[in-house]
Order: sequence, then C-alpha cells, then structure tokens
Amino acid sequence: MKLQPRILVIGGLAAGPSAASKAKRVNPDAEVILIERTPYISYGICEIPYYLTGEYQDDRDLVVYSPERLQQHKNVTVWTHTEVEHIDRNNNTVQVKDLMKGVRRKEEYDRLIITTGSSPRMLPFMKPDMNNVFTIKELGKAYELHDFLKKHKPRTAIIIGGGFIGLEMAESFRKLDIEVTVLHRHIYPFSHMDKQSGDILVSALHENGVHYVPNSNVKSFGANADGNVKTVVTENGTFDADLVIVAVGVYPNTSLAQDAGVETGTTGAIKTNERQQTNLDGIYAAGDCCEVKNLITRRPTYIPLATVASKMAWTAGENAAGGRAAFKGAIRNIAVRVFEYEMSRVGLTQKEAEDTGYKTISETIQAPSRIPGMPHNARLTVTYLADKETGRLIGATLIGKDGAAQRGNVLAAMIQQESTIADVAALDLMYAPPFSPLWDPLLVAANQTLKKL
Amino acid sequence: MKLQPRILVIGGLAAGPSAASKAKRVNPDAEVILIERTPYISYGICEIPYYLTGEYQDDRDLVVYSPERLQQHKNVTVWTHTEVEHIDRNNNTVQVKDLMKGVRRKEEYDRLIITTGSSPRMLPFMKPDMNNVFTIKELGKAYELHDFLKKHKPRTAIIIGGGFIGLEMAESFRKLDIEVTVLHRHIYPFSHMDKQSGDILVSALHENGVHYVPNSNVKSFGANADGNVKTVVTENGTFDADLVIVAVGVYPNTSLAQDAGVETGTTGAIKTNERQQTNLDGIYAAGDCCEVKNLITRRPTYIPLATVASKMAWTAGENAAGGRAAFKGAIRNIAVRVFEYEMSRVGLTQKEAEDTGYKTISETIQAPSRIPGMPHNARLTVTYLADKETGRLIGATLIGKDGAAQRGNVLAAMIQQESTIADVAALDLMYAPPFSPLWDPLLVAANQTLKKL
Repeated sequence: MKLQPRILVIGGLAAGPSAASKAKRVNPDAEVILIERTPYISYGICEIPYYLTGEYQDDRDLVVYSPERLQQHKNVTVWTHTEVEHIDRNNNTVQVKDLMKGVRRKEEYDRLIITTGSSPRMLPFMKPDMNNVFTIKELGKAYELHDFLKKHKPRTAIIIGGGFIGLEMAESFRKLDIEVTVLHRHIYPFSHMDKQSGDILVSALHENGVHYVPNSNVKSFGANADGNVKTVVTENGTFDADLVIVAVGVYPNTSLAQDAGVETGTTGAIKTNERQQTNLDGIYAAGDCCEVKNLITRRPTYIPLATVASKMAWTAGENAAGGRAAFKGAIRNIAVRVFEYEMSRVGLTQKEAEDTGYKTISETIQAPSRIPGMPHNARLTVTYLADKETGRLIGATLIGKDGAAQRGNVLAAMIQQESTIADVAALDLMYAPPFSPLWDPLLVAANQTLKKL
Repeated sequence: MKLQPRILVIGGLAAGPSAASKAKRVNPDAEVILIERTPYISYGICEIPYYLTGEYQDDRDLVVYSPERLQQHKNVTVWTHTEVEHIDRNNNTVQVKDLMKGVRRKEEYDRLIITTGSSPRMLPFMKPDMNNVFTIKELGKAYELHDFLKKHKPRTAIIIGGGFIGLEMAESFRKLDIEVTVLHRHIYPFSHMDKQSGDILVSALHENGVHYVPNSNVKSFGANADGNVKTVVTENGTFDADLVIVAVGVYPNTSLAQDAGVETGTTGAIKTNERQQTNLDGIYAAGDCCEVKNLITRRPTYIPLATVASKMAWTAGENAAGGRAAFKGAIRNIAVRVFEYEMSRVGLTQKEAEDTGYKTISETIQAPSRIPGMPHNARLTVTYLADKETGRLIGATLIGKDGAAQRGNVLAAMIQQESTIADVAALDLMYAPPFSPLWDPLLVAANQTLKKL
C-alpha cells in the first residue's frame, strides 16, 4: 500500500465517522474522506426517544461530531450533501454527485470502506407526503418529529411495531402526555418472548396507559385530503391517530455495494471476513449494511445495533489503514427501559435456537434484585435458555424494576465465553446490601436451571 | 451411609443454617441438628451498618431464620445456648455443654459439618469491660451497639480499620450525625489500593466529613474509671472518642477442629477438598473457618465473605447428606458503597499478583458510566490488572458514583472464565441511553490496556 493512501468512507451516520477516525489514527499520513448524502454526520439514533422528552440534554443535541469537528479533531475530510452513485472496482474510483450543485465527478481511492447503514422498513401503503408519519432513523426526521410535536401537540399516537424502538417511543410519548397505541404483529413485544417476561412487559405497558394491541397486522392507512393519516386499519380494528410512528425494523443498504460486485450473504447484508474485508480487493464494509457472525450459532446473522457496528467500524478503519484488527462476531445484547422496567435480552431466543438445531431447556425464576429490606429492591424475573446437550447458556431474558440491564452484561460475558449453566452457578458474584442479595438472581436462576439439565 | 444418618452442624451464624437446610433437603430422612453457642442463628452481619441507620428495614431485623422458623420451614433441629466442647473422631461423638443448665452430654453423629466461622481480630489492649468499644460481627453486639447509639448519643466515633466494614460504618455514623475518624494502617483504605482509586476514595471520605488518618497504627487506648475508652493513641496523635469501632479483620475459628485432628492449611484456616471434606472421615467444614482455593492463583487463600461461605455451605450440606457437589473456589469479589460512591474490587491486587510471581501490567481509565446528557451519568474509574505473559485479566478496581458494583460482576465473570484483556475488549455489551454509553467503560479500559500488552 502507498505511504499516503487515499481512503474513502461511504456513509456518515455512525460506523462511517468511527471507521474514518480510526483509519486516520492508525495511519496519520493517509488521506481519509468521509462522504455523506445528507447534511448530517455522526449522530445518535438511540437517543432520539429521550431527546424528544428532554430527558437527554446535551449541548450538541444528537450530534457527536459535526463535519467541522470531525475535520478539526480527527483530521478527517468530510463531504456532506454528496452521494456516491457508483463504485468502479476496476479503476478504483467512485462516481460522486454533489447534491447542492448537481455536479458529478470521479474520485480515486486506494481503500474503500462501505458504511451505508440500514433503512427503516416501510409499509406498502406509506407515501412520502404523509406528514404525520415518522420513522426513527434519520436525524433530519428526528428534528422534524420534534417540531411536529411542538407545533401540532398531537393527542394520540399509533406506534406500529413493538420492538425496542416502538417501546421506547411509547414511553416517551406517554411522558409527553400523548395517548399511545402500540400495534404489534406478535402476541408479546419483540419477537419470540417467553410468556412470563412477555406478560410482565405487557402489564408494564398497560399500567402506564399504553394501549397494546397484539397480533395486529396493519392493512392500510386512512388519510385525509392534506395527506395526513387519520386512521390505521388493522385486522383487529381501526385506530385513530394524530401521529403515526412506523418502527418495524430495518434492512441493510446494499445496492451500491452489490452493483459494484460486493457479495451479500444469506441474511441479505454484506458479507465480510473477520477483517471486515468484502470479496473485492481493497473494499471494506462495516455497520448496519453488514451481516455479522453470531458467536453462539457460528452462523451469519443480521444484528443492526450500534454496539456491533462500532466494533466493525474500528476493525474496518484499522485494517483499511494497514493494521491487523479482527472482529470475531457478536451474540446480540439488547437492553431497553420500558417506563420503570428494565429489560435485557441476550443471545438466542428459543425459536432461533431451535431453528439452528439446538435442543433447548429453559427455566424462569423470580428473585429479589437487592436484599429485601433495602431500598430499590424489586422482583427480578430471569429466564435462561440452555443447550441441553452441552449445558451451555445460549440465551437469557431479564426483566424487572431494578438491576436487569447490567446483569444482562454478566450473562453476555458468560455466553460469549461459551460458559455452561454450571459455570454461571459457580460465579463469584459480589454481595453488598446496597447493591444485591446474598444469592444473586443470576445464581438462583442457574441453580434452578441445573436441576433440569 | 445409614438411610437415616444423623448430621450435626456446629455453628449457627450463616454457613451452618445453610448447610443444615441443604442437608435436610438432599436427604429428608436424615436427622439434622444445628448447634449454636449463642441465642441467635442465621443472621446477617453485612446488613448491620444499614440496620443502625434505619436504611435496612425488615420485620425480622437481621435474623433470616429464627430457631423456630428454621425448625418449621427446613425441618432442622436447632440447639441454641449449646457449645460443642470436644469432637471425638474415633467414637463419632461430640461433647456438648448446655450453657443454660451447665450440663454436659455426649451426642453421636454420622456426619459432622464444622461451620464455626471467624472472630474479629482484637487489639492487644482491648478489654472485655470496655463498654464503648465494639466489633461488628455478632448479632448480640449489633443490638448492644444499636442501644448504645440511642442511649448515649455519641458525638464522636473512632473507627479503627479502613476495610469495607470500617468504611460502611463511617458512612452510617455520618448519617447519624456523628463525627467520624477512620484510622487505617495503610495509606489508602483497604490494602494495596492503586493510587488513582485510592485518591478518589479518600476524597469521598473527606467530602463527606470523615476524618481519614492514613498510616496510623493504634498503640493504646486511654480509658477512664468506668472502663469507657476516651482516647485512642496512635503514632499520628491521640484522638478523642465517645465510641470506638474495631474493624481490623477476622481470623478463622479452628481450635475445636484442630483439637480433633482436623488439618488447617497455609492460611491457618481449615483445609478441605472440593467436596468440603476435611482430612477426617465424615467431617466436613464450610464458611469462614475454611480456606478456599483462589481460582486465579490456584493457591489456598482466606476469603471470609458471605458469598463464598454460602457456596461452601451448600456443598458441605449436600455432600454430608450423600450428594456429590463440588465447590471449585473463588476469585474474591467485593463491592462496597461509600457514601455516594460505589466501589468494586475483583480478583488479585497488584501486590498479591506480584507475590504469586505474576509479571503484571495495569492501566487506569476514566469514562462516563452512561451516555453524557442522560441522568445519573458519572465518571467511572476503571483499573485493570493483567498478566503480562498470557494477557489474562487477573484483577480490577472500579470506583464511581454510578455503575461500579454491577460492572464488577461482569469482570468477575471474565476473570473466573480465565479470559484475556482481548476477550474483554471483544465483549458484546449492551448499549441503551438510560443505562450505558455506546462504548462501555469496561471496553474502553480493555482497549487501553491492550496497548500495553
């Protein structure tokens, strides 16, 4: 590689700025250019629900690095309002279009990092001119939603999709005193929740005034003349709405890469090796546009989460700059706050495990999060999923008003280290009255699960 | 073994009731008798500091099971006010003394479980009639201290010993508006704290009005005629006190066992195998009277903590009743609240590691506990200790106002699974704005430590 290689990074949301900064740090002589279609780079999607309520308060709003700050602090050149239209792998060039001037040009690269991210799934009957329908994905849209809430003071909101974004938005809207209905296609929020955790979560929603409608496939929108959606029509009835949030998942943005000959995998996302190299020489990829190895099943999986994207981005950035980093994969570790409840989901669901061929056993226990008699103690519900054959812990769900999220990380560590339920039972966890009970719920659950193994 | 064996358990504080209950559960036909010298069994030592301030509020105060409840709920016979004076290993009998009646008798056993616990270390010039000097170990003493505080309303307290009990008592006394001086023999609280964590802890004490005096060996007490200690004399000066707490550690109660021929190990505590069997046939031991294998160094160590004692007790109880349980050892995992700070110490200290022959590297970082801009975010200081040769994580200290204790458990899991710093850096930890930053401090610390390896 040249001493002063030119590294182009396509896509500026999260993985892009991270990969670009890393590349520049690894090889300060490299010319690193971040190319982004919109005016914004480097911002937080996950903070949007808390930004809308004002719980999240930061001078920079949702923006981690403005183009100017990324340039100043990380020495990365940033081109916003610039779209990459085509990658010419044979000539190591990309065709870019300056969206402000409408002018196209060719740019050379020595290394390319594709961080084109993901897009929110749409519903077939959604139209661009529906002014009161929002997805939670782009910064521009978040600012629009913020303005919409201030200007129109909607009384009712329909949230389509009961995944973590849907539930976080439900909490935020309730805090803004908006009547909220969540329409979800499964019986419980998320997918394949166990009954005990699911029931707790649904109760939490109801207790907090959220109208949760399970098994609801949305069939159409009723809109009025100005394009605003007034009703959402489902198999379970028609619901009025001043505001509609569509949060039914995301899909990887791969068309630019695919057109250039970059291979995608079984998940539909870009396939890379541990170095984040695609099948094409000199072309790396990272973030939500990529699939990732599930460290439990060893199979490719699609995990569009910021935590996973960040690690991929560092790896791609380092390697594009001549380093030797590896990203081995992920297990999927999600924590979400739903009103006063914390929920953690780590590893495989029962359905995923069975689809992979595992014979599973599962066990659910309830135990105090701290010692009874101390403040903040609350009942924690812990569900373990284990591989019957090896005794390995392969999945877990924790839900309760105290201590679920951080405990999920303990289980993530154990799952990732390929530990058995017996290993979990043997863990030397701390005890101090302000923080925990003598027998941590994680140990109680392990001892109970052991009886079934 | 007989179908209806008789299992005697000597010592009723924590390990004893636990071992007895487990034995009865494993073999309901066994006759299980718990023998305790004092009127009290099955109580919490760790809760005492919080009981004194009223933060800990439970109907049963500090008692988990009264003798009656243990009998009723667990079918364990309890003899309180009964001292075991001698074990006759050849005839499988013990000589007990009824302390109420002053009568001695012999009792047969098929299996014996020794759970004689530990006693607080005393200072050479402590006398039993010093009415305002307390150790934090026995329930009777805790009740006496509770009464003393109410009756005498002391204005000043000297705490001798800056370990976790000393610091917890300092917090409690400050909450009761007592002027507190902590005298500690090392520069920082605990032993062999690193400078950065130690400085934070000492600042926390000072900020909360605790007078912390480092490097202070106590030389004598000045007492007045009624036996009350009025002054504590150290190399660093003489301190006035209405109340003195001595919290300078504990030692294992082994004399009864040793007299019977039970072997102790290099630590001075009773030596057992993984089944909690002593060297003598049919005699098990568990809890603070025992040493335990350190899973990092693979050497015997003395860890008188309730968490470790509980696991030993279950193992001893199960095996004494004919089961096949094993307790593999511990790593030492301590969490303590010091006013608004949480501190976690896991695994080896640098001194312990070097004494064991490790070549170590250590690294300290500071990172936000949650995403900046969200409530409760606070700076967390994380120190890792790694084995230079293998890259393994062998110790950690975390201190901060948020999220130190539970994160210590994540590191405990990694240390116990013999993970490397690179494994920690690769952990798939959750990100959600209410709970954590995108790059968890545990990952930041690992990435920083990797640079030194």
